[in-house]
Amino acid sequence: MTMTDTPVVDNGINLQALLDARDALGADPAAAQFQWRTACTWRSGTHSHHTVHTFEGLGSRQSHNQVFAFDVDHPECFASEDHGPTPVEYVLVGLAGCLTAGVAAVAQMRGIQLRSVTATLEGEMDVRGVLGADNDVRNGFSAINVTFTIDADATPDEIAALVAQSQKRSAVYDVVTNPTNVTVEVR
Amino acid sequence: MTMTDTPVVDNGINLQALLDARDALGADPAAAQFQWRTACTWRSGTHSHHTVHTFEGLGSRQSHNQVFAFDVDHPECFASEDHGPTPVEYVLVGLAGCLTAGVAAVAQMRGIQLRSVTATLEGEMDVRGVLGADNDVRNGFSAINVTFTIDADATPDEIAALVAQSQKRSAVYDVVTNPTNVTVEVR
Repeated sequence: MTMTDTPVVDNGINLQALLDARDALGADPAAAQFQWRTACTWRSGTHSHHTVHTFEGLGSRQSHNQVFAFDVDHPECFASEDHGPTPVEYVLVGLAGCLTAGVAAVAQMRGIQLRSVTATLEGEMDVRGVLGADNDVRNGFSAINVTFTIDADATPDEIAALVAQSQKRSAVYDVVTNPTNVTVEVR
Repeated sequence: MTMTDTPVVDNGINLQALLDARDALGADPAAAQFQWRTACTWRSGTHSHHTVHTFEGLGSRQSHNQVFAFDVDHPECFASEDHGPTPVEYVLVGLAGCLTAGVAAVAQMRGIQLRSVTATLEGEMDVRGVLGADNDVRNGFSAINVTFTIDADATPDEIAALVAQSQKRSAVYDVVTNPTNVTVEVR
């Protein structure tokens, strides 16, 4: 026997577990129904406090290994106290995290070793919408631009393909680029 | 002169500043163009680190009063290390914070004193989408349910109207319920 020079690709992704989950949940749709949750308490003004802890999935209640807590606020230039990022910045964090996790998972699947991945996100917004100054201006982002810089053992085309596949499977990319039904009730 | 019994409504919202901003930015659309930003660094696997600090608006670079930092990850039941909430939970935090800030601002505008506002958000997701187990299942939320509990000096109808008006002016509600164009490039 001779030693073959097969590089070991390790992006910190447990690929076998993902493939097993795909097979198992593909055969058991009920277990694939997840419910993600947050709880929010208003503090004062535009400041609110949020916790993320439990969720439903795999047929039972699941938990994060700690209670994650966050503050949301508006900045001082809007006469607020800036106790945390704005709501829209949280959306950008979610989008960045989703696309980046996808890049790592797809790279692992394709045998590509990542060395570094960074991204900047820019969300354009005309705030005349939220201020009610112009009803023709939408409240949300007019556009979002994501720019990745990736150092990996791969060609530029292979790297571009990683990012494209990540977009194709990204939950938050889907949420942002397509409409989702939201019901709001008061109890 | 007699003292009138006018209750002082204080929800921590600087109403005059908001009205002034609406007038000023309504008359100066260039100043109303904001750009919100985040920066992301991949750590390992599905774990990434994010910072939120500067943004553009009012015709110049603005800053939060600190660098806000966040970790995004997947939970242990997905064979990840759970260093932070999932990307989709960040979206729920943003939605909750946006609607809640709106409730406070609208209440101030309408002279309604809030005593407490809490909300729970539930995002339903069939994870066969993101796992690639079924191409007919979308990657994002199939639905989001928001439930507010509000204690205020107001009738149930007035409280329901507060929430409805907050939805009408919410940036993140718009982002989630309507499509936004996202461009992704690799440099």
